[in-house]
Amino acid sequence: MTKLAHLDAIQTRIDHYLTAKLANLASNDEKLLAAMRYGLLIGGKRMRPYLAYMTGEALGAEQSDIDGVAAAIECIHAYSLIHDDLPAMDDDDLRRGQPTCHKAFDEATAILAGDSLQTLAFDIIANHEFSTAVADKRINLLRYLVNAAGYQGMCGGQALDLAATNQPISLAELENLHALKTGALLEAAVIMAAECSSKASENDKQQLAQYAKYIGLAYQVRDDIIDITSTEAELGKPSGSDIAANKSTYPALIGLQGAREKAENLYQQALQALSTLPYNTQNLSDFATFIVCRKH
Amino acid sequence: MTKLAHLDAIQTRIDHYLTAKLANLASNDEKLLAAMRYGLLIGGKRMRPYLAYMTGEALGAEQSDIDGVAAAIECIHAYSLIHDDLPAMDDDDLRRGQPTCHKAFDEATAILAGDSLQTLAFDIIANHEFSTAVADKRINLLRYLVNAAGYQGMCGGQALDLAATNQPISLAELENLHALKTGALLEAAVIMAAECSSKASENDKQQLAQYAKYIGLAYQVRDDIIDITSTEAELGKPSGSDIAANKSTYPALIGLQGAREKAENLYQQALQALSTLPYNTQNLSDFATFIVCRKH
Repeated sequence: MTKLAHLDAIQTRIDHYLTAKLANLASNDEKLLAAMRYGLLIGGKRMRPYLAYMTGEALGAEQSDIDGVAAAIECIHAYSLIHDDLPAMDDDDLRRGQPTCHKAFDEATAILAGDSLQTLAFDIIANHEFSTAVADKRINLLRYLVNAAGYQGMCGGQALDLAATNQPISLAELENLHALKTGALLEAAVIMAAECSSKASENDKQQLAQYAKYIGLAYQVRDDIIDITSTEAELGKPSGSDIAANKSTYPALIGLQGAREKAENLYQQALQALSTLPYNTQNLSDFATFIVCRKH
Repeated sequence: MTKLAHLDAIQTRIDHYLTAKLANLASNDEKLLAAMRYGLLIGGKRMRPYLAYMTGEALGAEQSDIDGVAAAIECIHAYSLIHDDLPAMDDDDLRRGQPTCHKAFDEATAILAGDSLQTLAFDIIANHEFSTAVADKRINLLRYLVNAAGYQGMCGGQALDLAATNQPISLAELENLHALKTGALLEAAVIMAAECSSKASENDKQQLAQYAKYIGLAYQVRDDIIDITSTEAELGKPSGSDIAANKSTYPALIGLQGAREKAENLYQQALQALSTLPYNTQNLSDFATFIVCRKH
C-alpha cells in the first residue's frame, strides 16, 4: 500500500491544534470537557484533515489557514461518530479499538459532547485567525460547512442510512446515502481548503469536488468490503457488523467482485478529475490510491 | 398579568420564517424533516424571538434583520429541548402538552433532528439576507451564537444540570448552572439584536446583557416555583417533575418564600439595568414583568 506522505506530521499538527482549542475553553463542566476530548483526540486517522492539508498544499494555501478548516471539519466528524455510536443509533461499543464515548462516559454526556463539538466546529470557523485574504471568505467557509454537516448533508445521510436498515434499497439510493453521509464532509474538506487558496478557479473547485465525491464513494465501497474481509483486531471493532445490522452494502447489492470493480472505477474517475487540474496533485492521487487499497 | 404587546404578531412572523426555511431545504429524508418541523414548530412561546424583536424595536434595528437572529436562536433552543427530553437526559414524555420528539418519532430521529436544527441555526446566520450594514457584522453574530450555544454556554449548563441531579449544590452553583443553561441564549437574543442596530454603544450592550442575565435567572426561579405550584394541565407536562428528578431548585435551597423574594429582586435589577438606556424600553420592562408573574 502507498504510504501517505506527511500523514504523521499532519496528525501531530491537527492534534496539537485541537488539544490547544479544547484547553482554551473556559473551565466549566470537567466531565463534559473530558468526553469532548475523548471523542476528538482518542485515535482517528485524520483523513479529512489530511485531504484539506494536501489540497491546500497543491493549491498554495497557507498551512495556518488550513488548520482552521481541518479542525472545524474534524469536530463535525468527531461529533457525528459519538452520536452515531449511541444505543439509539448504531449501538456500537467499540470505536478505534476503544470504548465508544457513551461507554467510556454515559449516554447523556456523549449526547452533550457531540452537541458541543458541533458548536465548536462553528466556533473555529468564527474565531480561527485566518490570514487577511481568507478572513474575507469566512462566511463562504461557514456556508460550505453548514451544507456539508446538516440536513442537506451528513445528518440527512445518517437519517437515510437508518431508514435503509432492515430494508432493501437500490444502488442509486445507496450512493445518494453515502454521498451525503460520508461524501459531503470529504467534499467540504477539499472545497474549503481550495477556498483558502488565491489560485483556485471555479472550474478547479468543481473538479476537486468531483475528485472528493469519487473518493468518498470509493472509501465507502472499500469500507463495506473491509467489513466482511477483515478481522476484529484489524478493524478495532467487530467485523461483519454491517451484515449483523442488516444494512445495505455494495457487496450485498452487487457482490464482492462487483464491489471491487466499483471501487476501481471510482478510483479511476477520481484520478481523471485530478488530471484536469494545473497543479501538482500527486499527494491527492496517492490519497485516492490509499483509499482503495487500505486494509482497515 | 401583563399582556405582552405584539406577541401574537411575533409568533406568527417567526413561525412563518421558520416554516419557509424548512420548506426550502432540499428534499431528502422526509421523516427527519418532519421531526425537525415537529421540534421547531409545534407550540413554543417564542420568548427568545420576542426578546430579540423587542430589543431590535427599542434600538431601531430593521425587523427583517431580527428575523435571522430570532430564527437562529430559536433553532438552537428547539434542538436543546429535543435532546434534553431524551431518555438518557431528562426522560420527558410530554412537552407543551404534546408527545416529545422521541415519543412522536423515535430516539435516533430525535437525536438527528436536534443535530440538524443546530446546524440550521448556523445556516441561518450564514445565509439570512441581512441588510447591508448588518451583513458586515455576520461574523460577530456567529461569535455570539457559538458562545451562547456550546460548551461555554448552554451545553455546559446542561452538563452542570445533569451533574447536579441527585447531588446537592450551592446557590452560587445553581445560579452559574442557570446562567449557562438558560441565560446564555436569552443574553444572545438581546445582544445579537443590539448588534443589528447602528445605535447601540458598548455600554448599551453591557446594560442589555445585564438585563438579560437578570430576567434569565428570574425566569428560572419562576420556573422552579411554577413546577411545584401549578397543575399538569397548566404546565402541559407533569408538575413536581424537578422534585421527582431530585434536582436542585431555588425553592429547595431557599424555600418558596425565599424564591419569590429572589425573583422580585432579580426583576428590580433587570428594570434598573434598563433604566440606564436612552431608548423606549417599555416592552422590555413589560417582558420582565411577564417573566416574574407568569403562571405557566
